[in-house]
Amino acid sequence: MEFDLIARIRARAGQRDDVVLGIGDDAAILRVPEGRHLVVATDALNAGVHFPAATAAADIGWKALAVNLSDLASMAAQPAWCMLSLSLPQADVDWIDGFLDGFLALAAQHGIALVGGDTTRGPLSVCVTAHGLVEPGRALRRDGARVGDDVWVTGSLGDAAAALALLASPESADGHRTEAGDAAAGASAWLRLRLDRPQPRLAVGAALAGVAHACIDVSDGLLADLGHVCAASGAGAEVRVDALPASDALCARFGHEARRELQAAGGDDYELCFTAPQEMRDAVAGIGLEAAVAVTRIGRIVAGDGVRACDGDGRTWRPGRAGYAHFAG
Amino acid sequence: MEFDLIARIRARAGQRDDVVLGIGDDAAILRVPEGRHLVVATDALNAGVHFPAATAAADIGWKALAVNLSDLASMAAQPAWCMLSLSLPQADVDWIDGFLDGFLALAAQHGIALVGGDTTRGPLSVCVTAHGLVEPGRALRRDGARVGDDVWVTGSLGDAAAALALLASPESADGHRTEAGDAAAGASAWLRLRLDRPQPRLAVGAALAGVAHACIDVSDGLLADLGHVCAASGAGAEVRVDALPASDALCARFGHEARRELQAAGGDDYELCFTAPQEMRDAVAGIGLEAAVAVTRIGRIVAGDGVRACDGDGRTWRPGRAGYAHFAG
Repeated sequence: MEFDLIARIRARAGQRDDVVLGIGDDAAILRVPEGRHLVVATDALNAGVHFPAATAAADIGWKALAVNLSDLASMAAQPAWCMLSLSLPQADVDWIDGFLDGFLALAAQHGIALVGGDTTRGPLSVCVTAHGLVEPGRALRRDGARVGDDVWVTGSLGDAAAALALLASPESADGHRTEAGDAAAGASAWLRLRLDRPQPRLAVGAALAGVAHACIDVSDGLLADLGHVCAASGAGAEVRVDALPASDALCARFGHEARRELQAAGGDDYELCFTAPQEMRDAVAGIGLEAAVAVTRIGRIVAGDGVRACDGDGRTWRPGRAGYAHFAG
Repeated sequence: MEFDLIARIRARAGQRDDVVLGIGDDAAILRVPEGRHLVVATDALNAGVHFPAATAAADIGWKALAVNLSDLASMAAQPAWCMLSLSLPQADVDWIDGFLDGFLALAAQHGIALVGGDTTRGPLSVCVTAHGLVEPGRALRRDGARVGDDVWVTGSLGDAAAALALLASPESADGHRTEAGDAAAGASAWLRLRLDRPQPRLAVGAALAGVAHACIDVSDGLLADLGHVCAASGAGAEVRVDALPASDALCARFGHEARRELQAAGGDDYELCFTAPQEMRDAVAGIGLEAAVAVTRIGRIVAGDGVRACDGDGRTWRPGRAGYAHFAG
């Protein structure tokens, strides 16, 4: 089955001048410009683990690339090339075409060329390796946070986990908060879009080079991912749980406490969480305006270790065990 | 489960001076030397498709890297860095340690550093992306074969397919060819090693730059893969089926006609098939001697298209349908 599929993919892959040899040989040959470091991320998505088994092919294609572009965004890298390894139970031309619709639409938005990969028989699984470029010393890393930094996050949190919660049990939304009929359905559809079509924050990430001290993308949940930044940086963090940005749709479908859980501990957001010195507040706000992406200050880096979330009264808040578990592995 | 596994992997990954940032962030940062092109290959292995489900973890680790290094070998690239994406049904520390034993043993042999990846829950599947370096214009490609070129192959063919055939039905070996007891078991074990522990032909591949015109690694079966070279080069090929190199173990376990099938159509050999002008015969022989790898002239590139295999009397030979089908997807 492999060759028909490869021809199909090859016919639609994008072009870049720095691709010496793209799809169709044993490997791709690429020209890395002088004065740039190569940035490489790999993430795999498995059916039933990283996306509901019934997810549309186009959404799977979009998300498989998006989660990798999000990794490049968090490093302040500019996307260049990607590899796609696709395991499919059988060669299904309609499915492949749909998958490519989503994958290549996002690739075109960010100027990344698909240059190789493989297709194999197996349970539905997508492994993407994304390559980006960055000036030496300009990449954002997890280990650069400093005591006194503000902690920021892009976009809104908890939407993807909310969509999963609604899929798992539609009644999990607070009945008394639900708008009547259409409004609730609209909010649910918007949340589902956030789950299926994450927008990698590449423009924000690139602009944060030289401004932010540390950055990570929020895939495992805000508290977990900020915890990785703290561990790598040898510092702690305090975040105000009520400062976490919530979308209108999340507010429409979930009550106060459920929202907190989803925002603080839900995964799959693919927003950027970053730290920056206080004197950069105006710069960060300007970057958000320029990219038309909300940027919200949610806490600060402190001496010590671990992440403490606190409520409006300064009391420590912890996500409950009943919460909306991360779908991913 | 992800973080314990990553710490385990990180503790054992190799080092290179050109790794600016390795395992542990959202992406790796790598320094590509000036005057080199980047060569990238991705291949995934799925349990039950690319290896028998009962294969030892160390063998899976070895093979997952080997098939990607084989792609670099066929491009004449020098290995540099790799990414590993691992899907596992559950976090099994013994399995991971075994997997790393095989993966990292081969990585150390060829100086390739493991710099990133991810681990997820899912059916057992391994996706590796290997990065190599090559001087501009020196890479071997599929599309360079010219009419009059000799066709060569490294090592021996059919061993991996023979091992699969023996696993599927031990009686598939010709009874009257089987040596008694120990010798047959030894031959079977040797064939199984060829299936589980392919040796990527990196030294030969690198030395062929400037000598060979075209190259591919034999993963789908000799006739199929040589067919890809012909299609890409706009030429045909004739091979003498009785010239295909056979190992002693293959000869010990399989009769003449079964051997032909396995050698011409069996997959998973990970030998190099390449074409070179006739005046390079001595150079090719010298490269084989230097690398201590057999190189065998099996045919030539002709005008036309497609691959014709012929027997000793010049009659066209075709693989039968009963044959030993490629295990891979």
